[in-house]
Parts: sequence; structure tokens; C-alpha cells
Amino acid sequence: MLELNFSNMMQEVIGEKGISEKQIEGLKTKVYDIDKRIKAKEIPELAFIGLLEQDTSEIKKIASDVRKKFESFLILGIGGSALGPRAILEAISPFHNLDKKPRVFIYDNVDPRTLQRILSLTDLKKTAVNVITKSGSTAETMASFMILWDKMNSAVSGSSKNFIATTDPSEGNLRKIANEKKITTLSIPKGVVGRYSVLSSVGLLCAEVAGIDSNEILKGAKDVHKKCSDAEIWKNPAYLFGTLLYLMEREDKRSINVLMPYADGLKPTAEWFSQLWAESLGKSGSGLTPYPSLGTTDQHSQLQLWMEGPEDKVVAFIKVDDYEVDFKIPKVFKDVEGTGYLGGHTLSGLIKAEQESTELALSKIKRPNMTISIPKIDAYHMGQLFHFFEMATAFTGFLYGLNPFNQPGVEEGKNFTYGMMGKKGYEAKKEEVEKARGKKTCRRV
Amino acid sequence: MLELNFSNMMQEVIGEKGISEKQIEGLKTKVYDIDKRIKAKEIPELAFIGLLEQDTSEIKKIASDVRKKFESFLILGIGGSALGPRAILEAISPFHNLDKKPRVFIYDNVDPRTLQRILSLTDLKKTAVNVITKSGSTAETMASFMILWDKMNSAVSGSSKNFIATTDPSEGNLRKIANEKKITTLSIPKGVVGRYSVLSSVGLLCAEVAGIDSNEILKGAKDVHKKCSDAEIWKNPAYLFGTLLYLMEREDKRSINVLMPYADGLKPTAEWFSQLWAESLGKSGSGLTPYPSLGTTDQHSQLQLWMEGPEDKVVAFIKVDDYEVDFKIPKVFKDVEGTGYLGGHTLSGLIKAEQESTELALSKIKRPNMTISIPKIDAYHMGQLFHFFEMATAFTGFLYGLNPFNQPGVEEGKNFTYGMMGKKGYEAKKEEVEKARGKKTCRRV
Repeated sequence: MLELNFSNMMQEVIGEKGISEKQIEGLKTKVYDIDKRIKAKEIPELAFIGLLEQDTSEIKKIASDVRKKFESFLILGIGGSALGPRAILEAISPFHNLDKKPRVFIYDNVDPRTLQRILSLTDLKKTAVNVITKSGSTAETMASFMILWDKMNSAVSGSSKNFIATTDPSEGNLRKIANEKKITTLSIPKGVVGRYSVLSSVGLLCAEVAGIDSNEILKGAKDVHKKCSDAEIWKNPAYLFGTLLYLMEREDKRSINVLMPYADGLKPTAEWFSQLWAESLGKSGSGLTPYPSLGTTDQHSQLQLWMEGPEDKVVAFIKVDDYEVDFKIPKVFKDVEGTGYLGGHTLSGLIKAEQESTELALSKIKRPNMTISIPKIDAYHMGQLFHFFEMATAFTGFLYGLNPFNQPGVEEGKNFTYGMMGKKGYEAKKEEVEKARGKKTCRRV
Repeated sequence: MLELNFSNMMQEVIGEKGISEKQIEGLKTKVYDIDKRIKAKEIPELAFIGLLEQDTSEIKKIASDVRKKFESFLILGIGGSALGPRAILEAISPFHNLDKKPRVFIYDNVDPRTLQRILSLTDLKKTAVNVITKSGSTAETMASFMILWDKMNSAVSGSSKNFIATTDPSEGNLRKIANEKKITTLSIPKGVVGRYSVLSSVGLLCAEVAGIDSNEILKGAKDVHKKCSDAEIWKNPAYLFGTLLYLMEREDKRSINVLMPYADGLKPTAEWFSQLWAESLGKSGSGLTPYPSLGTTDQHSQLQLWMEGPEDKVVAFIKVDDYEVDFKIPKVFKDVEGTGYLGGHTLSGLIKAEQESTELALSKIKRPNMTISIPKIDAYHMGQLFHFFEMATAFTGFLYGLNPFNQPGVEEGKNFTYGMMGKKGYEAKKEEVEKARGKKTCRRV
């Protein structure tokens, strides 16, 4: 079971820079209140919790079809529609495309170089395209969908069969197009927003296509939900995680939250978390800045800054108890002083020692850190990680008095793009762009 | 040629939150002085500038051998020894391993799951292993080297021939072992430290093995060096980049520096930059926190926080003028309102419009940003990017009065690991670890 060790956040370990029990107790009433609001599903977007009870049979059926008929599976989606699938895939099936079928490609940007490479690596006839957008109108996703739709039409007869649309159950352009063109569809339930959708068909279809049991993912999430919905803060790792980071920011201006898993496969999970945390909490002029990191790798990249830079960070490690495979470091080069000492240890011993060392080094100089540990990296525990972080994020949003489910700040940029692309109703934005271009001072070197 | 457009950093565009010409002029004397110190090669680590003049014939010879004889090329190295090669490879040869030979693997962590996968994907007889460590004793690198050495010995006779050691010209354990075992070696010149080594054999051998011309990379770096060593700050993009970020932090507490390329292939370059910037400048209690990002992708992940979160960030875009390939978005789904507008545009048009929109949206609410532009993504311009950032980083370190080439803050963590691994001389550290373990309060949920 996922656990949170928060000793190194507390005064008893890191002294006055730490948090006291009293500070946490002081928030108890507020926490009870938030817990009630979450349980009452106060806002519709809390629907993500309902995903744990979903029936996966439709997902499994479609995935089984894809596995039988296709050699490549191409996801078109951005933000939550790409980060979740990628997190699952790279955690459980690393280097998937080098020896597994179907190959899985996730095209989330609108970079023409990437699309060109993906097309050069796939045979469209044998490619299933999964278009994912909750709203049904995400510009990047719809643009690449239009290109693929056209290309598929030229390559295959009855090309609708090569597409799967994952979108709102009834609304939006993608739903409309899917109905018209008789495209197979999967629904993202009402209320579930992009960055909380990894445990919906968004993440689970990709998992099943890659041979990963979606029921195991959901089972892990369900099991961790018991802990993560305990009204008692001291028993709830999700509420504690949020409360500790909230206090560190409010009381001590530590607003950067590093998430540092000690496993290559969890790097995309740290990136998935970063979207969740940044978009949910970064608003109204405040917010916590998530920082995706990777141990041991970033000990050789970021750690210097964590140790001696400004005191604006809290580091949360993810520790894996059992890597399930291991290598013994052989006793070679014994006579070379300063290298031979490694012989006889194991790789997992080394990576664990490094995690503990980093934790100790930070704690010794009173820099707050905590450790989320999972027994191993598998579908079941990925489900735990995802749901733990989603509960923590929703809770923390409420603690800040924010709506953790909207993202009003990205609208302006979208509107400018619509203006430039000539979308109806955005003529004023187009003018604004042209005016800005006109008066652009050329500060260029 | 690489250019820096810094209009949106200045008062004339973003008002009082911007920087004035006067503020920059005020630093001119200091800049002249730093420029002189750089040109006088005041500290030996400025040797990275000398790399631009290197002879690549040995690198080319070894790479050509690797390309002829091997199917896989496995780099063992961490930090600067991995980030640089990865940045080159993914920028110029994305999805390399899916259809190119030799396949290139970069094993930079000590995660046993990753090593197991790499070994399952390679035939050791046909694998060249490039061990890279400047010091010759990096624990992670040496541990994986020992494992590979042993495995290669069992798989191949005369297994030394499968190794290439990239290290200090005369010192360190790897040099010693290479001499003893008659392993082919490449040198990282004296003075050149890990994170400034991408333009040495560290990055260039990987480039050549992947079929990328190292001379083009160096030519780009050389050409940009003319601009980046101009004593006149207004003509020098590297000095300006550093000065602007320095002023934003000193005067306005904006200490997070987002680097956001609009190209998938440049994501690892943003990570490479993050090591360079973090380790070089994060010390003595201050420092700038680099934040690797990716456009358009992270508009759907981080942008909300950049727009409405705390005013602690400066965003630097990397803009690509010509993607060299392109796709026309076809005029399908014309009758679907809110989607049809995309038809007729190109993907490159869309990604560029999104970059400009994000720039405008930030500028409109007076959030500082600037844009580094490169004509296209090729070896020549990658050389420009690397050298530009290295010059900017060294310069900025001097501006802060720091040594931008050391990383004293990572020693404590290393020492604890040495203690746990039983390295001679670190017995006291082992005791410290055990003491810490003993008194560990168990705050776990």
C-alpha cells in the first residue's frame, strides 16, 4: 500500500523550519469541512472519484480488437489526454515500441517534424487512431485528427473503422463528428475534466492496448481511496500531503514542490502530476509550482540547487520498495581504489542508498522533504499513485479556497490563436494581434 | 543565426514590471569586467570555449568503426555525460531507435528495471559501450560499467574492443582502467566540466554514431561565439539573456526561469539547460530555478500557473523559424462549427500562432518573457543553442559573483552513499547514517 513518510517535514526532525503538530491540528476543522464537501460531491467535477467504480468491459473489448487488428496505436490528445496514457505506458511497459505490438505513439503537440516521423514509422492501414478530447474542440487535437482523417481516407476504404473517439458522452464537436461518421466512441463521464481523467477510458484504453490490466489499476485506486478519504487528517496521506505543502507555502514561502521518483519509469508520472498540480492550484495570483524531477539522475542536475539555492522548495521523493529485477555489481577492478568498493552491492541497493542519502543530506541542513513509498511499480500501484495525487490536489485546491478544476488563465492565449486562425467570433482578437505586431519594438540581438 | 528578442522584458512593452535601458546600462562596467575575465580564461574551467577549435578526426574514426561493427551503442553516463548526448540525438534524430542503426541507448540512472530492458533489447556481441565520466569515479556510471564489463566478458572474447572510455586525459580511475585493459579512449580536455562538455567528445561521439556531423555542430557554435563574446552587452545575446534574468531576480524576485521550446525535439535541450543553469547558479543561498517546458504541450499543463500564479517567473521561448516539413490541415468537417476554421492552415502555422499567442497573452498582463529564435533544427543550430547557453551561464555566474563551474552542494549526499556502500574513508558517514536511521521518528501514513 502507498505510504507517506512525512517525518522530515516536521519540527521534531528539521527544527524551526519544520511544521508543528499544532499547526496541523489548527487546520482540522477546515479539513473536516473540506472532507464533507468532497464526500457530498459538492461540485460536479468531483466525478473523478466515481471512476473507480466503472465497468471496463467496453474498454477491454475495444482494446482487444485493436490488439488483434492493428500494429500501431496512435493517440491524438494533449494535456491530460496525453500525460496520463504516457505515464501508464512508460511505468509499466518501458521501451514499449522496441519489441512490443501494437506500437503506441502519443502525438500531443502540433510539431510537424514529429508527425512526419510517426507517419514514416507506421502503416496507416494497420494503425488505430484514438482521438481524445473531452471538450471535443481542442485545436491541436482536432487539427491532427483532420490530417489523419484525410490521410486515412486515402489509404483505407471504410477508414472510420481505424478511429476511436474518446470524448464527452453527448456534447462537443468530436461527439458530433463521431456520430456522423460512425466512429467507435468511448465516453469520458460528465464532470471528469482532462487532468483528472487518467483513470477513465483516456488512460485505460491505452493501458489495455499495451497489455496492461485496467482492472488492476482501478483496484489499486479503489484500495488507496479508503485511506485518501479518511476524514481524520493524521490517517489520510492525501490530505496530509496537501496540508503540509500548503503550510510550507503559507508560513514559509516555500512554493516550489519537487516530485522526485527514484525510477526512470515514473518520470512521466512526475510530469502528469505537474499538470495536475499547476493547473489546479496556480490561480488568483498564488499557487504552488510543481517541479518534475528524477532520482538518481537529477542529483547530478538539480540537487545542487535544492541544497544550496534559495529556500523556496519542498522535495517529495517517490521510493520504490522492490524493483523486482536486480543486478549484482561484480567485484571487478578490485585493485582500483575508489571503485572497488561498489563490488558486491546490488543496483537496487545503490539506488536506494542514493535516495536515502539525498533525504538525509537535505534533512541535515533543515530542508523539508517527504517520501511517498510504493511497494513496486505495477498497474495496481500506479492506480494508487494516480488517485492519491488526484485526491491530494482536489483537497489542496479547496484548502486554498480555489476551484481546483478550472483553468481560466489559458483562455486568452487560445483566443489569440483562434483570432489568427480566423475562427468565427474572434475577429477582435485578430485585430488585437495585428495591433500588437504593428507596435512591436524590435529588441533583437 | 540564433537571435534573442527581448522586447517583452522591457518597460516599453510591459511597463513598470519591465526592465529599463538604464538598469542595463548601469551594469555595463561590470559586464566589461566579466567579459575581460572570460577572455583572459581567468579560471581553467573556461576551457569549454576552446572546444570550438577541436579536431574531430579521432571522434569520427571511432564513430565510423562503431557504425560499421555494432548494432547498438550504449552510453553509460549521468548528468552532463547523458543530457548532452540525449539533447543532440532527440533534436536531430527523433525516434532514432525505431528505424535507425546503431540503436542508441543512454543509461544514466541506476534503475535495475531500465538496465534489464536495455539488455533484453541488445545483443552484447553487437553492442559498443561508451562509458563517460570526467572524474572517472562517478558511482552510478562505474557501477553500471562494472556490470557491463562482467557481462561482456562472458559474452565476447576480447571484450575490451566493445568499450570506449570518455574521460580525463590523464587522471582518474576510468583512465587507469582503460589503460590497463587497453580500452579505446577519448579525452574530455582538462578544465572542461561535465555540464559544459556537450561540445566535447561526450556529445560529439554520440552525434557521429547517430549519423550527425559533429563539424556542423562545432561550426554553429563557432559562428555564434562571435556574437556571444562581444564585449558590448547590447550586441551580445548571451550576456543580455543573463543580465535580464539577473535583474528580474534581483529587482523583482522572479527567480524561476522557464525555458519553453516550441518543438518536441528540443525538450531534452531544455532539460540539458536546466542542469547547466541549476548547478552553475544555485549556490550560496541564492540561485535561479530553471524550469524545462515544452510548447504547445505545456500550454495545457503549466501555462495556467504562468498566467495566474505567483509573479515569480520569466518565460523564455525557443522559436523555430522553419520546421522544414509541414502538413496542410485539410478542409474536412467544414459544417462542424468551431472546427472547420482550422482547415486550410498548416501545422507549422498553428504551432507558430500558438507560440505568438502565448507570448502576447503573457505580455498583455505584464508578465516578462523573451524569445530565442533559431532558423531551423539541425546540427549547425544545435551547436549555436548549446554554446549560447553555456556562455550565458558562465557569464551569469560571474554576474552573481559565483563560481559557475563547481557543485559543492552535492558532496554531502555522495558522502552518505559512500558511507552506506562501505567506501574506505567514509566510515564516519556510515555511522552518521546509522544514527539518523536509529532516531528516525516514524511519521508514516
